[in-house]
Amino acid sequence: MHVNKYKRFEPVKLDDRQWPSKTLDKAPIWCSVDLRDGNQSLPVPMSVEKKTKMFNLLKDMGFKEIEVGFPSASQAEFDFTRKLIDEKMLDEDMTIQVLTQARDELIEKTFEAIEGCKRAIVHVYNSTSTLQRKVVFQKDKQAIIDIAVQGVKKVKALAETSNVEDIMLEYSPESFTGTELDFALEICEAVIKEWEPTEDNKIILNLPATVEMSMPNIYADQIEWFCRNISCREHVIISLHTHNDRGTGVAATELGILAGADRVEGTLFGNGERTGNLDILTVAMNMYSQGIDPELHMDDMNNIINIYEACTLLKVHERHPYAGELVYTAFSGSHQDAIKKGFDAYNHEQNKTWEVPYLPIDPADIGREYEAIIRINSQSGKGGVAYILQADYGYRLPKKMHPEIGKLVQNVTDQTGKELSSQDIYDIFFNAYFEQEKILALKSFESTLEDHDTTHKGIKVTVSAEVVFRGKSRKIQGTGNGPIAAFVNGIRELDIEPFKLAEYEEHSLNGGADAEAVAYIGLTNEDGVTKYGVGKDCNINLASIRALISAINRHMIR
Amino acid sequence: MHVNKYKRFEPVKLDDRQWPSKTLDKAPIWCSVDLRDGNQSLPVPMSVEKKTKMFNLLKDMGFKEIEVGFPSASQAEFDFTRKLIDEKMLDEDMTIQVLTQARDELIEKTFEAIEGCKRAIVHVYNSTSTLQRKVVFQKDKQAIIDIAVQGVKKVKALAETSNVEDIMLEYSPESFTGTELDFALEICEAVIKEWEPTEDNKIILNLPATVEMSMPNIYADQIEWFCRNISCREHVIISLHTHNDRGTGVAATELGILAGADRVEGTLFGNGERTGNLDILTVAMNMYSQGIDPELHMDDMNNIINIYEACTLLKVHERHPYAGELVYTAFSGSHQDAIKKGFDAYNHEQNKTWEVPYLPIDPADIGREYEAIIRINSQSGKGGVAYILQADYGYRLPKKMHPEIGKLVQNVTDQTGKELSSQDIYDIFFNAYFEQEKILALKSFESTLEDHDTTHKGIKVTVSAEVVFRGKSRKIQGTGNGPIAAFVNGIRELDIEPFKLAEYEEHSLNGGADAEAVAYIGLTNEDGVTKYGVGKDCNINLASIRALISAINRHMIR
Repeated sequence: MHVNKYKRFEPVKLDDRQWPSKTLDKAPIWCSVDLRDGNQSLPVPMSVEKKTKMFNLLKDMGFKEIEVGFPSASQAEFDFTRKLIDEKMLDEDMTIQVLTQARDELIEKTFEAIEGCKRAIVHVYNSTSTLQRKVVFQKDKQAIIDIAVQGVKKVKALAETSNVEDIMLEYSPESFTGTELDFALEICEAVIKEWEPTEDNKIILNLPATVEMSMPNIYADQIEWFCRNISCREHVIISLHTHNDRGTGVAATELGILAGADRVEGTLFGNGERTGNLDILTVAMNMYSQGIDPELHMDDMNNIINIYEACTLLKVHERHPYAGELVYTAFSGSHQDAIKKGFDAYNHEQNKTWEVPYLPIDPADIGREYEAIIRINSQSGKGGVAYILQADYGYRLPKKMHPEIGKLVQNVTDQTGKELSSQDIYDIFFNAYFEQEKILALKSFESTLEDHDTTHKGIKVTVSAEVVFRGKSRKIQGTGNGPIAAFVNGIRELDIEPFKLAEYEEHSLNGGADAEAVAYIGLTNEDGVTKYGVGKDCNINLASIRALISAINRHMIR
Repeated sequence: MHVNKYKRFEPVKLDDRQWPSKTLDKAPIWCSVDLRDGNQSLPVPMSVEKKTKMFNLLKDMGFKEIEVGFPSASQAEFDFTRKLIDEKMLDEDMTIQVLTQARDELIEKTFEAIEGCKRAIVHVYNSTSTLQRKVVFQKDKQAIIDIAVQGVKKVKALAETSNVEDIMLEYSPESFTGTELDFALEICEAVIKEWEPTEDNKIILNLPATVEMSMPNIYADQIEWFCRNISCREHVIISLHTHNDRGTGVAATELGILAGADRVEGTLFGNGERTGNLDILTVAMNMYSQGIDPELHMDDMNNIINIYEACTLLKVHERHPYAGELVYTAFSGSHQDAIKKGFDAYNHEQNKTWEVPYLPIDPADIGREYEAIIRINSQSGKGGVAYILQADYGYRLPKKMHPEIGKLVQNVTDQTGKELSSQDIYDIFFNAYFEQEKILALKSFESTLEDHDTTHKGIKVTVSAEVVFRGKSRKIQGTGNGPIAAFVNGIRELDIEPFKLAEYEEHSLNGGADAEAVAYIGLTNEDGVTKYGVGKDCNINLASIRALISAINRHMIR
């Protein structure tokens, strides 16, 4: 590695800092940037439909300020902004926020986008960092200040003629944390001077850690220094916008609030450029867990996760604070014991202050279940079982089959209390699904497929088979457009309860034209119960017929 | 939600705290707990083979202290500890660490486990938190101190007769952050008094945030308070062990080092109970990015990720600091432009101090590539394309086919520069794979399957088909153990280059016995190039034959 090519971040000279002695006592003003910063960093950006879904989620959660896009940057962003306004999708108490660079033509386009709405925050930015001034813009400080001031002038002029009732200005010295503090202050003072904020018309100064460049205590020092030095502090809303390059975005925001900030920008689960933006949910849940009203509704965390994952196509990690799948799970016996005793004590308590070991919050508060908390320390995780069958044996079980095999394995671990090896798991799988022919068994099979119509609409498959049904040999015949359908028709004459084919999947187990194929078939009975069967054969038809027979037997053996 | 059931964490009274003015200047002593804390929290715990793989990775990375297990808790942990010693797997400068509760019989078993090794850290713990004393143990403070002291006595006695040359004691007041500070100090003083550490035989006092209960600055206050109040500080190594329940585990460790800690316990990518342990890699990379030698080798991050994922069966999240797939990716045009200019400036610079906008480190330093940095802002992410085809259209493409379709979509976005809709992607997919019959087309198809042997070893499939090959109608016939094999045999007489079947997958597109099936077939030609074909039909045989024909055409049309 090449450690010498990096230099240390200069700390802030602030010996009388106050923030380390402060504590949090109320939620900041939240602003979601999911639809802008979050969206622009997705491998697959949201469609209008998904943006709408995300917007409605944010509204339902109680966000009052939402940055909905960068309308001057693309037609899609412009159209979505218009849609929100034209279709009156904002509640009375909500404010739309739109981002624009400090350039006249972009600001004009931005004002077109917000025309007719009641209240809007116009968010103007330009890059102020030492590095960007040098390598990107090759401009001196005054030229950078001029860009910002010219942008504010333009906003001011357009605001006077706009039909938007209430226009608030937000200014971001982009890459604030990479900007000399005194220059960041200088440019913000110039912006204030031009905008002339008042008690009733405050300005938002947003101080982004566009890239997280230092420890969170240094960010807090920067914020405190800025808050102490900015003029007319009472007419300014200080806003934080942290990223997570060093894995400390949440901490930087929390310490930044201690240092004096009023407002926080971020996204659900920290989606955003590179390592992401601030994870608003974690900060809000951290407040909640300390008895501070987060002023956001997070009662149904699974619903938030589902919509988030559907819109972003990203996954919430298993260990994500408060939301991850494994977060309310204890594997160690001593933890499980302590949790049980903690629950008992909590349930007997009068005033119900939450205190249960290893559980910072009551999972029920966000719609998670107690049942999920204690799992057996074995290979019983349902994803785990499927993973082992795939990694070690090549079987790629359909997703919907995972709970079924998971439960079979779980039953064994419950009975034996032992950890299972990969071979143990394969044996459970094999015994449950293969050679299942107690009630219905295949003896011989013959089929013909005819397809003489060049449109391929007249496919006809005829199956003749010999089966053993409840101990008696029977010959069956059936036709259909495929072997499964033909065989199903053939066994209608037997006394088998009716099933619906819920799912069929098949894959080769290894390469080569003669390779074995494995088929999975899910059958649903009249009570709506689905059970799977598995069949393996060199022949793909026979593999599927075997899977069908396996599923029928598994249904009928009680 | 029920905010009133939570109470605020009491801050530490420490008005003259020093840590906020300190800066980091060297790496702490690292101790990996991947094989203990990390392993015990996995849905699928590591096998001996995987533990060995993980151990070797940690050794190669330069960890000198590794907690290898809790040998008195299970035979598997005991055996693995023995294996490391008996098979001499530790380097000269490495120290093995083993965890045990402060109970005589467990400490005895622990000493059996480490017999014959050169150096070991015996890590004794008991729960000291207010809550656990009340609800779990129902014991007073003195009884809790007695447990710890008795444990230390036992270690001391066994150390005298042990053949391990060098035994170091580590003591953890478990749930330190949930323990009254003065009581944590009191119990540690009792442990020190019993152990009698010296300059040459220091004691490790490990102060775990077993559950992260407060903001990271408060943890730092706790650590500074403890460091200032503990007696014989010079004979004590203060160790941190943070968790991530509030998403601030990295920050808590970093501020804890400022507050005086010497040593840090954690895991790769922060695997561990619930939200995980401290992510050691992030702290180490944070130091690296500021020019501090992290004293860990992280040159080949992808190799670390691969071994980690194989051993834990967990995934490193796309946005994980320094390691995630999306971390060195810029989607926004202005970011891409600034990065390009930054690279140009860096490449022309003499003294090579790393400064490129939006890239906190040079990805090359950890074996990542520049090429991956700038991606086109479109639906071109390969996972994204496959996801859309599945989510919106029901096609579950084989994993190995994703790059192929990803590239086809990428080509279109490269040419048009436009964002693609879901329908656009489906169209690209359809046009590339379906109705591919320019060189070889199927006109009619007939097959018979005979299986009269009850052992099912004598399956015979005969295929007769009419095809059009390079514009001429041809009749073919073939036999095999399945329709694909029979058809492949049938077309041997045509002038088609030889292929190997690399993969076959098939699934139903929706429910019901008459549902359509879609088949995917990968064919590899003699140059080792694999191309996929896709076929859809109500009949599973015809779906696979169509997929085969699609793949052949896609190979032969250049």
